[in-house]
Amino acid sequence: MLNPTVLELGQKRSTIRELFAFGQQRAAIVGADNIFDFSIGNPNVPAPDAVKQAILEILNTESPALTHGYTSAQGADFARTAIANDLNARFGTSYGAHNLYLTVGAAAALSICFKTLTTSPQDEFIVLAPYFPEYLVFIEQGAGARAVVIPAQTTDFQIDFETLTQRINPNTRAIVVNSPNNPSGAVYTPETIQLLTDLLRAKSAEIGHPIFLISDEPYRELVYDADTVVPFLPSHYENTLVCYSYSKSLSLAGERIGYVLIPDSVTDFEQTYAAICGAGRVLGYVNAPSLFQRVAAQCSGLTADLSIYRKNRDLLYDALNAYGYSCTKPKGAFYMFPQVPDLDDAAFCERAKQLDLLVVPGRDFGAAGHIRISYCVQTETIERALPLFEQLAR
Amino acid sequence: MLNPTVLELGQKRSTIRELFAFGQQRAAIVGADNIFDFSIGNPNVPAPDAVKQAILEILNTESPALTHGYTSAQGADFARTAIANDLNARFGTSYGAHNLYLTVGAAAALSICFKTLTTSPQDEFIVLAPYFPEYLVFIEQGAGARAVVIPAQTTDFQIDFETLTQRINPNTRAIVVNSPNNPSGAVYTPETIQLLTDLLRAKSAEIGHPIFLISDEPYRELVYDADTVVPFLPSHYENTLVCYSYSKSLSLAGERIGYVLIPDSVTDFEQTYAAICGAGRVLGYVNAPSLFQRVAAQCSGLTADLSIYRKNRDLLYDALNAYGYSCTKPKGAFYMFPQVPDLDDAAFCERAKQLDLLVVPGRDFGAAGHIRISYCVQTETIERALPLFEQLAR
Repeated sequence: MLNPTVLELGQKRSTIRELFAFGQQRAAIVGADNIFDFSIGNPNVPAPDAVKQAILEILNTESPALTHGYTSAQGADFARTAIANDLNARFGTSYGAHNLYLTVGAAAALSICFKTLTTSPQDEFIVLAPYFPEYLVFIEQGAGARAVVIPAQTTDFQIDFETLTQRINPNTRAIVVNSPNNPSGAVYTPETIQLLTDLLRAKSAEIGHPIFLISDEPYRELVYDADTVVPFLPSHYENTLVCYSYSKSLSLAGERIGYVLIPDSVTDFEQTYAAICGAGRVLGYVNAPSLFQRVAAQCSGLTADLSIYRKNRDLLYDALNAYGYSCTKPKGAFYMFPQVPDLDDAAFCERAKQLDLLVVPGRDFGAAGHIRISYCVQTETIERALPLFEQLAR
Repeated sequence: MLNPTVLELGQKRSTIRELFAFGQQRAAIVGADNIFDFSIGNPNVPAPDAVKQAILEILNTESPALTHGYTSAQGADFARTAIANDLNARFGTSYGAHNLYLTVGAAAALSICFKTLTTSPQDEFIVLAPYFPEYLVFIEQGAGARAVVIPAQTTDFQIDFETLTQRINPNTRAIVVNSPNNPSGAVYTPETIQLLTDLLRAKSAEIGHPIFLISDEPYRELVYDADTVVPFLPSHYENTLVCYSYSKSLSLAGERIGYVLIPDSVTDFEQTYAAICGAGRVLGYVNAPSLFQRVAAQCSGLTADLSIYRKNRDLLYDALNAYGYSCTKPKGAFYMFPQVPDLDDAAFCERAKQLDLLVVPGRDFGAAGHIRISYCVQTETIERALPLFEQLAR
């Protein structure tokens, strides 16, 4: 007498969460230092000190009843204004509080967007492999729509436009993009964005309704080379909804604070914003956590010390290549997505697990033959794990 | 091309949230002191100092990466253990971490339970008027099931068992109870609980599957008289799921921290717990906010200074009776639910709104003719609003 869909999802859990729980159990037995957990994108770099200072200032100067009380469902006006101002300063936009809906992290933001745009069980959301696996759960079980997966273009993890073009049809409601990408670390080039937005405009005109671009951007600020630019998608395509989270930029993954950005340029802006609010209500979110709304207002635009991720990337990338793994160099996020030598990613991950080395099979991200390595860990953890990667490559 | 259900919910919003937003707008114009906002259950009594001390201690002693990082989806083990220990000490139970699933507040806990128990669109959840109006949204739009409302028994706001008995059928999955009650302030007596659990056991046997009792308990600790006891329902009925929130007891409504308690006694315990986890995943919750998991672990069982609510209750109750309102004296929570003299609650609330006095029509809670007054405000606000209540009674 239980909902079979949620029972199955609860029994299987996500591979990532399963590995994370396994790692915590093993750590209790063999010590945290002896677990090489590259399974989850849980930032190891601490939140910037500004976060702590903001919390202290808020606790010492604001009324607790205000700080910890309900805000309006879309988020406190001052917090949305502050975040809009930060975006405007960085991207030359002119957003206001009315363009933002604060959320319980990016997962909530995405769930809300899928729910908002789903009008029938035939509705389709296009997902580009390799993808964050929970997209499929949020689209199919959460919103009751269909996820249409475009296979990975594994040479450089840009987009296979030929397949994408074929798969767009009148049921297509939106395409989800995630750049910098989890799990590949790829950043879409300006050329990719140009091709994508041209295609979406042409197809929207052809099918007679807008195809939305849902931009999942938790890794926006996590890029490591001076010549890597992350295009700001709402400035390139009018029907863009941005799903943002402070999880990675401020190392606040557990605090669940993010937003949906709804630009004035989206078709039927006012209705879309209202539907976003309605979806948040249906999903039981009430409001984004109130203390961290204030923290985000003060710290939006800052980042944790990302230099550690860059160092980790370079160390890991050079070593894996030397060991014979085939790997595209990540431009951003904190994941590496090498091919495993024998292309059996599941077997590789099982063998690795026996060594207390936790990595996630690429098939979970829609790209078998690869593994995802989250390098948001201490550099020393990578250094000590390298011999295991070398051993596993043989 | 928007989901019509969420669009409608977003455009209408809840009356309570609408009034709350109206109050904030008016406060910006005429000053917060000149708005008499009794619309929302946003605790005015500050969080106990222990909350601030807990946050400071956590920030000063714990690693930020741990404090603000992901926890397991069901909540950090140590936090669940601490909360179980608190319950055990207070209620003579023997729960462990495995009985708790921490949530983004009680709204999430309820949404998760409804989703978990819904197996078909014919499934029914029984709601007793007067009820928290979002129950209907979570059941119907959130879980895709049916809400069956039992009309209010307005003499003392206990339960109309005759009607309830008639409405239970093989589609009945659960009954939602909320004692102390929002909006009536009633607390179910031990006799009510005995009749209810006897009925549920008999009907479960009759229809051949368990009927769950979903106990929504954000007001558990908010009772004002020495002789008022709130029965701990899992000790009275084996298939009880408790949905708890620290919103009111610790005045943390905006922080979204609560739990589902799943006792070992529920039918198919392990599957039920797994399905709860799956439902949380489908709804995009990821994990309950991590800093406040730690705060709850340290502060579970404490309360804000509830004496102010008692003072407010007595002041308001005596005055309203003197003005000719008919009112059942609230035993708990921080709401009063008087009848309005001409029984037209909507018109009353409109007239009140013209005076910047914000109260919610009883029809929103399934009991027209009444109004809900949230007295979780400063006592002075009540004192200054009394002449308006007197004027409106005429």
